[in-house]
Amino acid sequence: MINKKLILSKRPIGVPKKDTWNLIEEELPNLKEGEMLIENHYVSLDPAMRGWINETRSYIKPVAIGEVMRAGTIGKVIDVKGKTSFKKGDFLSGWGGVQKYLISKGEGHYPINPKNDNLPIYIGSLGMPGMTAYFGILEEGKIKEGDVVLISGAAGAVGSLAGQIAKIKGCKVIGIVGGEKKANYIIDELGFDGAIDYKKDNVIKDIKRECPKGIDVYFDNVGGKILDSALIYLRMNARIVICGAISQYNNVKAEGPNNYLSLLVNRATMKGMIVFDYAHKYSEAMKEISNWIDQGKIKSKEDIYYGIENFYETFLRLFNGDKLGKLVLQIKK
Amino acid sequence: MINKKLILSKRPIGVPKKDTWNLIEEELPNLKEGEMLIENHYVSLDPAMRGWINETRSYIKPVAIGEVMRAGTIGKVIDVKGKTSFKKGDFLSGWGGVQKYLISKGEGHYPINPKNDNLPIYIGSLGMPGMTAYFGILEEGKIKEGDVVLISGAAGAVGSLAGQIAKIKGCKVIGIVGGEKKANYIIDELGFDGAIDYKKDNVIKDIKRECPKGIDVYFDNVGGKILDSALIYLRMNARIVICGAISQYNNVKAEGPNNYLSLLVNRATMKGMIVFDYAHKYSEAMKEISNWIDQGKIKSKEDIYYGIENFYETFLRLFNGDKLGKLVLQIKK
Repeated sequence: MINKKLILSKRPIGVPKKDTWNLIEEELPNLKEGEMLIENHYVSLDPAMRGWINETRSYIKPVAIGEVMRAGTIGKVIDVKGKTSFKKGDFLSGWGGVQKYLISKGEGHYPINPKNDNLPIYIGSLGMPGMTAYFGILEEGKIKEGDVVLISGAAGAVGSLAGQIAKIKGCKVIGIVGGEKKANYIIDELGFDGAIDYKKDNVIKDIKRECPKGIDVYFDNVGGKILDSALIYLRMNARIVICGAISQYNNVKAEGPNNYLSLLVNRATMKGMIVFDYAHKYSEAMKEISNWIDQGKIKSKEDIYYGIENFYETFLRLFNGDKLGKLVLQIKK
Repeated sequence: MINKKLILSKRPIGVPKKDTWNLIEEELPNLKEGEMLIENHYVSLDPAMRGWINETRSYIKPVAIGEVMRAGTIGKVIDVKGKTSFKKGDFLSGWGGVQKYLISKGEGHYPINPKNDNLPIYIGSLGMPGMTAYFGILEEGKIKEGDVVLISGAAGAVGSLAGQIAKIKGCKVIGIVGGEKKANYIIDELGFDGAIDYKKDNVIKDIKRECPKGIDVYFDNVGGKILDSALIYLRMNARIVICGAISQYNNVKAEGPNNYLSLLVNRATMKGMIVFDYAHKYSEAMKEISNWIDQGKIKSKEDIYYGIENFYETFLRLFNGDKLGKLVLQIKK
C-alpha cells in the first residue's frame, strides 16, 4: 500500500509558501505485532499549526524538518496485527498528522463513538477547539451572569463556541469578525448580541457602541490592533484570556498591546492559556458540549475542503479569513 | 500668614517643562470653626504624579488646571479653631498637596506617631510606596519560598522594599537598576541576590545569566523594553505585577510589550494593581513593615531635597534616575 504524507521541508519566514511542505509517496511496511493501520479521514487545520513549524520551542516541540506535519485527525482502524489497543473498524481521534495512513500502536489516539455521520465534529466542537473554548471561557475567563463578553475570531471554531457558551451562562456577548457574512452569521445563527466587522468598521468606536459599559471578559484569538482596541474599554477587574494571536503568527516580530497600562488602571488580568493543561477534564467538557448540541443550544459548523493535495491552499484560509467555523481537510471520501 | 502653593498651570506633553506649574503666594484666610492649619514638612514625589496631570481620567481624577498639585505629605497641626479632628502639635500624613500650609478639617489625613525624628519614612516605607510594595509582592505577586523574583526600579521606593520583602519570604531576588552605584546598593545594602544595570548591560542576556531557570514573579515599575525582556524568561505559571511604567509616563504613545505571547506559552498572568484597593488593610501592612525595620530586616532609604522652590528640578529626578530610594521634598526645616 502506498501512503501519501506531507513532510515539513523548510521553516517559513512570514506566511508559509508552498515549498514549506512537500507531499511524498511512500510504501507502507507490513504491520508488526500490536500495530494498527489507521486510515485518516479528516485532518484538523488550526492556527496553532503555524507556531509548530517555527524553530523555537514554545509549549510543544516544533515539527522537525523531514517529519510529517503534525495535525489532529479523525481516522479509522482498517487493519490490525495481534493484540491491539483498538479493533478493526474503530473510529479514532488523535494526532495522526497530515497523511493518508499511519501505522500506530494507538499512542495519542482515543476512540470516538459517532452518533451519526458527523465525524468532523470530533476535531471541532468536540475536539481541541471545543476544549479550548470551554475551558478558556469558563475557567480562564471566569464568566458570570451579566458579564459583558467580547470575543475576537468570533466566527471561528473556538470563538463561535466560546460565545455560545457565554450566552448559555447569561452573558452579553459581542463578536468581532471579518466581513458582513460572518457578522450576520454570529448574530442570526449563533445568537450573539452584537457583531463588529473589523474589515468595515472602526473597531475602537464600535466596541464603545456595542459595550457602552465596558468589557468584563475579552477572549482574544487574534492579537494585534484588535487586542489593543479592546484594552481601552476594560471594566474594573476585567479578564483578558489570551487564547491565540492569529494576526501575529506570520509576523517575524510580534506586535504587543500598547494600551497594556489599562490593566493597571482597571486592575485587570491578562492570562495566557494552553488547552493541553485541561486534558484531565476533557471528557467532562465533551459530555457537556455534546448535551448542549443535542439540546440545540450550541450550533457547530465545519467548513470542509477535500484532498490532501489541497492542504496548502486550504491551510491559508486560516489566515486570510476565507472560511466559516471549523476548518477541516477531508482526505478520504 | 502667607501660603506658597504650587498650581498646575498647563497640561504637559511629554516630559513636563518648568511652566507646567506655577508657584504662587496667597494670604491664608482665618480658620473657621472645626478647621485646622496644617504646616507641611515633607512632600512625597512619586512617579504616579505624572499621570495625575494628564487630562484623561485613569484611576483617580486628574488635577485640574489652577488646582494645587496633588501630593502625599507629612504635616503638623499648628493651629486649630473649636472642635477639630486632630489637636495642635499632631503630625499627620495625608494628601496635603505641594504647598507650605493648608487649612483642613482633616479629610484625607491620618495621625502618625513618629518613634524618632524620621518623619519622611511615613511617606516612604510606611506610606504609599510601602503599601504598594507590600501588597504588590505578597497579594498580587503571590510569592512563595524558592521563587525567582525579578524587580525593575529596584533601587526605588517601591522596588527596594518589594525586593527586601521577597528576600524575607525566601525568594531569590534580582533587581534591575540604572547605574553601578544602585547595583552595588541593592546587593550590598539591601541583600538582593543579583543586580542588572540596564544602562551598562544587555538586559536580555543578563536576565538569562541571573535567572537561568527563568522568572516566577516579575514586579514591574518601568515598562518598555525591560518588561519586554523579562517576558522572554517567564517560567510556567509566572506572575507579572504591573505596578508602574515609569519609562512610558512621559511618552505620548505608550509602547506595549511585543513579547506578550510568552503569557500564552507559559500560562502566565499579567495583572495591574492600584494600591488604593488595599486601603482597608494598610494598618496591618504598616505594622509588619515597621517590625521588619525595627528588626533590621528591611532598610528604608529616603533621598531628601529641600525647598518648595526646587519642586520642578527635584521632580525630574524621578525620571532621570538621579536619586536613590524614596524621593522627598522637604519644605519646612
